[in-house]
Amino acid sequence: NVGLRRANVTNGVREVTLCKDQKGKIGLRVRAISKGVFISFVGNGTPAAMGRVRFGDQVLQINSENCAGMTSDKAMSKLRKSAPERIVLALRDRPFERTITLQKDSTNHVGFVFKGGKITAIAKDTSAARNGLLIDHALLEVEGQNVIGMKDKAILEIMAHAGKTITLTIMPNFVFDHMMKSMATSLVKGAMDHSIPEV
Amino acid sequence: NVGLRRANVTNGVREVTLCKDQKGKIGLRVRAISKGVFISFVGNGTPAAMGRVRFGDQVLQINSENCAGMTSDKAMSKLRKSAPERIVLALRDRPFERTITLQKDSTNHVGFVFKGGKITAIAKDTSAARNGLLIDHALLEVEGQNVIGMKDKAILEIMAHAGKTITLTIMPNFVFDHMMKSMATSLVKGAMDHSIPEV
Repeated sequence: NVGLRRANVTNGVREVTLCKDQKGKIGLRVRAISKGVFISFVGNGTPAAMGRVRFGDQVLQINSENCAGMTSDKAMSKLRKSAPERIVLALRDRPFERTITLQKDSTNHVGFVFKGGKITAIAKDTSAARNGLLIDHALLEVEGQNVIGMKDKAILEIMAHAGKTITLTIMPNFVFDHMMKSMATSLVKGAMDHSIPEV
Repeated sequence: NVGLRRANVTNGVREVTLCKDQKGKIGLRVRAISKGVFISFVGNGTPAAMGRVRFGDQVLQINSENCAGMTSDKAMSKLRKSAPERIVLALRDRPFERTITLQKDSTNHVGFVFKGGKITAIAKDTSAARNGLLIDHALLEVEGQNVIGMKDKAILEIMAHAGKTITLTIMPNFVFDHMMKSMATSLVKGAMDHSIPEV
């Protein structure tokens, strides 16, 4: 199943090397949470997107310097001050996220309601109920494709066009709300990377 | 590494069949969170412990009935009313937990401070810092052995006796505090299953 492979959360560590674009940007934002630094935004078509940096990845190191205890501003400043041709990030794959795979029923429903990208209700005796999908979670990816900032209608469209099996990537609202705090809605809605990851 | 295998969080679904003991108990408690039902207590030496039910497992079904949307009381009542010789649980492996593996340095430290079983600080340039261990998390298992309710000194002892590599299982305080709400401290301290899981 390709959606499952695209979405797969490994919690593993990888190294990514980025170059700044012509404007001197790499196209990501970070947010400090509980003494860790996390990717809170990846811009569409930016070096970060091309380097497959994902929303929710934890930045362990910037150019071999540990990020533990850094503020968001400090980490952003380290990125800005990096040499344009070589920024090396050590990333841990999305620690606060997990995937859940659901099956459409004969009416093509999987059995949950969401509003503003957040899961608000589970329908009885559906795939969502059987698999233990939870409310109070944000819907981050469908089949591994980031849907943050998309309209609910667009997300429904993506689910409708997927096969009988759908893999969702979710994160507790509690963490999500912190990640998105004081992020401009226009940025998330207009410029978040929503490309389909290669596997 | 045996500790890593003992601790490994798969998020997979398994079926467990339990029988009540002579007192008519199976030795577990559950807590409803976000329309899901979770194991909040496993008693030492009880049928639940012998069936390898773990703290944090999500109960998807009790005797083929979906638990989605059940209150804690409703789920406990379903368990109590079950036939003593055959209680079938469908469990999802610890959805709110993850593991992190640390290496002891030459002074046998991994680099974090905890208090009352909760991670409160990360030391600079240590294994905990390099690996992105976070504060605001509860320490649930060391090398896959449940340590909830143990004194900090006892947990330190377990870590000291482990090898150079230590795998920790953690959960955000936010979820942990909800799981433990209104649970008697004496129950957790005195009767929680702390046995070492077989692999």
